Amino acid sequence: MGNTFGRLFRVTTFGESHGAAVGAVVDGCPPNLEISDDYVQLELDRRRPGRKLTSPRKEADAVWIASGVFEGRTTGTPIALIVHNRDVDSSKYESIKDLFRPGHADFTFQAKYGLRDWRGGGRSSARETVGRVAAGAVAKRLLEGAGISVNGFTLEIGGVRAERLDALENAAGDALFCPDAAASSRMAERLGEVKRAGDSVGGIVEVRAAGVPAGLGEPVFDKLDAELARALMSIGAVKGVEIGSGFAAARSTGSSNNDQIGPEGFRSNHAGGILGGISSGQEIIVRVAVKPIPSIALEQDTIDSSGRPAKISVTGRHDVCAIPRIVPVCEAMVRLVLADHLLRQRAISERIFERIFTGGRSDG
Amino acid sequence: MGNTFGRLFRVTTFGESHGAAVGAVVDGCPPNLEISDDYVQLELDRRRPGRKLTSPRKEADAVWIASGVFEGRTTGTPIALIVHNRDVDSSKYESIKDLFRPGHADFTFQAKYGLRDWRGGGRSSARETVGRVAAGAVAKRLLEGAGISVNGFTLEIGGVRAERLDALENAAGDALFCPDAAASSRMAERLGEVKRAGDSVGGIVEVRAAGVPAGLGEPVFDKLDAELARALMSIGAVKGVEIGSGFAAARSTGSSNNDQIGPEGFRSNHAGGILGGISSGQEIIVRVAVKPIPSIALEQDTIDSSGRPAKISVTGRHDVCAIPRIVPVCEAMVRLVLADHLLRQRAISERIFERIFTGGRSDG
Amino acid sequence: MGNTFGRLFRVTTFGESHGAAVGAVVDGCPPNLEISDDYVQLELDRRRPGRKLTSPRKEADAVWIASGVFEGRTTGTPIALIVHNRDVDSSKYESIKDLFRPGHADFTFQAKYGLRDWRGGGRSSARETVGRVAAGAVAKRLLEGAGISVNGFTLEIGGVRAERLDALENAAGDALFCPDAAASSRMAERLGEVKRAGDSVGGIVEVRAAGVPAGLGEPVFDKLDAELARALMSIGAVKGVEIGSGFAAARSTGSSNNDQIGPEGFRSNHAGGILGGISSGQEIIVRVAVKPIPSIALEQDTIDSSGRPAKISVTGRHDVCAIPRIVPVCEAMVRLVLADHLLRQRAISERIFERIFTGGRSDG
Amino acid sequence: MGNTFGRLFRVTTFGESHGAAVGAVVDGCPPNLEISDDYVQLELDRRRPGRKLTSPRKEADAVWIASGVFEGRTTGTPIALIVHNRDVDSSKYESIKDLFRPGHADFTFQAKYGLRDWRGGGRSSARETVGRVAAGAVAKRLLEGAGISVNGFTLEIGGVRAERLDALENAAGDALFCPDAAASSRMAERLGEVKRAGDSVGGIVEVRAAGVPAGLGEPVFDKLDAELARALMSIGAVKGVEIGSGFAAARSTGSSNNDQIGPEGFRSNHAGGILGGISSGQEIIVRVAVKPIPSIALEQDTIDSSGRPAKISVTGRHDVCAIPRIVPVCEAMVRLVLADHLLRQRAISERIFERIFTGGRSDG
Repeated sequence: MGNTFGRLFRVTTFGESHGAAVGAVVDGCPPNLEISDDYVQLELDRRRPGRKLTSPRKEADAVWIASGVFEGRTTGTPIALIVHNRDVDSSKYESIKDLFRPGHADFTFQAKYGLRDWRGGGRSSARETVGRVAAGAVAKRLLEGAGISVNGFTLEIGGVRAERLDALENAAGDALFCPDAAASSRMAERLGEVKRAGDSVGGIVEVRAAGVPAGLGEPVFDKLDAELARALMSIGAVKGVEIGSGFAAARSTGSSNNDQIGPEGFRSNHAGGILGGISSGQEIIVRVAVKPIPSIALEQDTIDSSGRPAKISVTGRHDVCAIPRIVPVCEAMVRLVLADHLLRQRAISERIFERIFTGGRSDG
Repeated sequence: MGNTFGRLFRVTTFGESHGAAVGAVVDGCPPNLEISDDYVQLELDRRRPGRKLTSPRKEADAVWIASGVFEGRTTGTPIALIVHNRDVDSSKYESIKDLFRPGHADFTFQAKYGLRDWRGGGRSSARETVGRVAAGAVAKRLLEGAGISVNGFTLEIGGVRAERLDALENAAGDALFCPDAAASSRMAERLGEVKRAGDSVGGIVEVRAAGVPAGLGEPVFDKLDAELARALMSIGAVKGVEIGSGFAAARSTGSSNNDQIGPEGFRSNHAGGILGGISSGQEIIVRVAVKPIPSIALEQDTIDSSGRPAKISVTGRHDVCAIPRIVPVCEAMVRLVLADHLLRQRAISERIFERIFTGGRSDG
Repeated sequence: MGNTFGRLFRVTTFGESHGAAVGAVVDGCPPNLEISDDYVQLELDRRRPGRKLTSPRKEADAVWIASGVFEGRTTGTPIALIVHNRDVDSSKYESIKDLFRPGHADFTFQAKYGLRDWRGGGRSSARETVGRVAAGAVAKRLLEGAGISVNGFTLEIGGVRAERLDALENAAGDALFCPDAAASSRMAERLGEVKRAGDSVGGIVEVRAAGVPAGLGEPVFDKLDAELARALMSIGAVKGVEIGSGFAAARSTGSSNNDQIGPEGFRSNHAGGILGGISSGQEIIVRVAVKPIPSIALEQDTIDSSGRPAKISVTGRHDVCAIPRIVPVCEAMVRLVLADHLLRQRAISERIFERIFTGGRSDG
Repeated sequence: MGNTFGRLFRVTTFGESHGAAVGAVVDGCPPNLEISDDYVQLELDRRRPGRKLTSPRKEADAVWIASGVFEGRTTGTPIALIVHNRDVDSSKYESIKDLFRPGHADFTFQAKYGLRDWRGGGRSSARETVGRVAAGAVAKRLLEGAGISVNGFTLEIGGVRAERLDALENAAGDALFCPDAAASSRMAERLGEVKRAGDSVGGIVEVRAAGVPAGLGEPVFDKLDAELARALMSIGAVKGVEIGSGFAAARSTGSSNNDQIGPEGFRSNHAGGILGGISSGQEIIVRVAVKPIPSIALEQDTIDSSGRPAKISVTGRHDVCAIPRIVPVCEAMVRLVLADHLLRQRAISERIFERIFTGGRSDG
């Protein structure tokens, strides 16, 4: 239980890494949106860049829309998005099926359910995110109609930080989704070193949402930032989430952290586009901390399911870092939150966008 | 909409800062728990320390249990917890009722709803958290029965960090809920400086939960860390949440970040007690970044509801920092999450605690 | 758990018969609706007619709006509606507190929770419906703005059926909410006989909703008729619900039961205004079967909480029939369903009303 | 929106009549239950008896379990149950795609969504119930472990009523799921007459649940009878639901309708096994009114989507009555409700069954 997300725009995902299929059912999508296999596939392909440095496992990941779309348009009924698992070889997991891989969910799944599908990590595999990304594509279409765009990029990998953030549009074309080409090269070097060492690294992803109208978010528990935090923290490997200035705000003062306001609008964006849990009309900015991939070749101590000590070295086609593949997943989750709250706000208000900054806009 | 929290242990809060009352309805609490006004009041009193450095506003905050408790025990029916607002003087807000205070939710509430209760910040006031803390007291009683304890403390205020964390039990008795007495003194000095400057500061709160059985949390969207992130980010002023190593994990390697396992249990706790979104049986560790109080005496630029420029200086009985008052609120939210997931896990499993580390425990 | 109703327009009720208070929290109500104590009180007063034949217990039932309304208008935040219990004397329940009253929920509450508030029936008392009716008043205001009106009436009491249904507006002024004055007299006679015999009777209530736009209801599980059935069956004493022709449709043929369609609209309304779980724009018609009040003076067999046989005769200020007091409760529940679905439909559609019957309407 | 059912045992269905597939995702099923394709298929086959008098359309309906089951057992993760639509020919719907079939949801889907999948009725087709029945099979397995069995039968078709109800176990083997063989023959005759007349009929289905422990159901809105009413009314063609004596209780007196209690247990079951919305431990009895199939060969008046008058005669492979095919659907919905409430009760109580009737049981 816990595989459904959203109140009005609702997504239910299913599927294990080496099971028959992974996928999602999107319920509550408004009718008359253009959706096609190709449109959804684009997002799935971003998740599977097939680029250097990411896992060589070739995931065809061809999406099959099994319901909810008629003559190229959504009908208002549930949209089932199914991706068959192919290229699956569970044999290499046979030898470690009785061991709890450190940093993985093997132990906790066993503790919770009393049994687990050990093939490829089962439901706790990153493979699960296929359903999120497919559903996120539907949300993307809905948001496009409202003028909202969501873009993620790599801010940091293995301690190497992108410094030039003046051309974020470059991220989409970069192998590591990093907008700073020079930093991307250094990140790639760092990934190579780590791989050779049999180790792994983490990093930081930033997602920004532009065009979000003021008014989205439902205090006090379904605040927009609270929902974003939940959505992003629910992604495997994410260990921290911050909005706007985030943890830096903890060391700031009110006079510098407050975003002062003029007739032209807010004069800074330390808030990250959210005040009191409600979008302010500014760009929404959120960052997530991604831990190192727990599967490493270096030998580690663990126990088996009987509690006996064992050594484990996880080899195979594993990524060295969850970034860049996690970037489209983060975008998808932000889109799911925004799509849901866009509909929620529509329910109580005919006007979605509150025009207060008339002065500034007449200039722009 | 968005004022209900939890799936089985469900809390609905209500109330504005200067309205008639604030409170909560707890639905889904198991029967036969001992609950009294006094027990709930203890938690409310922690939120209102009446100590130096916090707001001089005297909040009586006497809780009234209006339903759901009979002869000192919960009956399984909804528990209404109501606190009348007293000592309320809205007149000082008259002069700024038409201005959007920078860093506050005035603008976004206006944008969302088209009107707002400007008295004392209305629903966006920290006063709202009375309902959270009262409900959290009920959750505390439930968790006590399961051997779970939740304790928060001040890790950092205005850049001053607690270094000695070897006696966390000292936090409860400290004026700033800081376990490091020396750091607490420096924090107090820092607060004094800031107050004299007409400014404010933020800080970092850490919450730990001990005795949590392995198995709590519901992948993939209702993972325990995801729910904690949502719960804590929903508190006003919180701009970041991290679990275990959190953002530091982003700069770590797999070999150092993975918690290796021996027959005696996990050998470190970078995970913060949660793997794959499910509790591991280790201590749960979560930290939140708290932004500076936005109400400052220093003059700031803003606009009025017609978009005209204005100056604003917020004076009155305001705290300089949301800490320490936010600490019991953070504890309450962690308790609400754990109580809900304890019940959720009970629904699918007769045994709550999975005993795998038999070796280590027979020693201890 | 189970005390919250609705997805967007959400109501949480609380309170026991002889506890301190009963009430409701309405979350998700759109802002800017005019709501006052007086407006809510009107509905509460309908539930407490103070007329002949109903329980002599004088319930002041003065509602207190503790939050969510500012300067006479809803603000979009939770609306707490609280009614103190006065005129409460639990002493007469002392003698039967250990007995399970036949037809009551005493036994099942004990079985479910292991303990129960026996004073006045606790949470299982009809007193609980005060919260429903108060919340329903808020829904009524929302529906008024959309041109929707909901009216209930007494169709049958103790086997006496209202035959003249051509002037339903007369029901509101009738002591038994019966639109047929002659039938109402016979019903009153029947109630008198039954009372003298120490017995009780049931009846049938019909509720109609006019002005409901086509398009409300969410297949396949949250169909409008499904939600109405749940809403009405959740009222104590209700044992059956039917829509339109209802059980009579089971004995009909397709050719007579289908509502044929002309350019002027539907030519009959066997469907009761709902097709495929979605409102058709016709009047919504629903009926509920109300069982006899289980509290009777006649002696009955029962057991005590130790399983020993006992005799029980329930005397005191009890109604002989749940009608007419249940009529406003039925109206309230229908309003809560419609308010919720009105908001749900707004979320996916800008136009609420689909105009297809242009021909018929240009004539009218 | 509205395609998810249940709070803990949660089912999300998807699929159109002539789309690619129909199915369900079951989330929240406890781990370690034995589930196989064959087990689910048994229930799907009951829905498709392949017997005389039902639609000749041959539905292979082979279920594919795409996730959540490992080595023949549930793992606690979502169970995706998918049935491809085969034998689909939409061409015969081409000619009426612009007409609103009387008694169908064509008009209301168009009004709600602005467009619709007209092929075979799209989402409003009875084909949708495949997902319910597949999910219901999983619930059945869960209930078996708790000693609960659910069985439905045909009480009435076209005015012909089953009189002999002393051997309900005969229903499963009867072509019309009727336990009274003589009545079944008359029902078959009636169906033949109606079919020859180009018309259709309705009927009444009764479902009974045995072995349900006392204590299931969550007052005040999620009462067990309220949830059953919603679950059953959500099935297409159902226009009424009653519990126990149902509408007959409306004409009864308290002295005859109350189920008196002795040390051996309840002495009658007018309540239908539910008191105050909570199961009493007695057999649960619920009946549903099924309207005549709206698709009839007889010519009817309607309009097209432009509002112009038209004649329509619906021919093809349609059933004359929704019974018997609806019987397994009704069983499935009752199982889904009971499975959900069984888990909900487990969450708050270690003991599921309250033993009060010790006297009676020691005899039996």
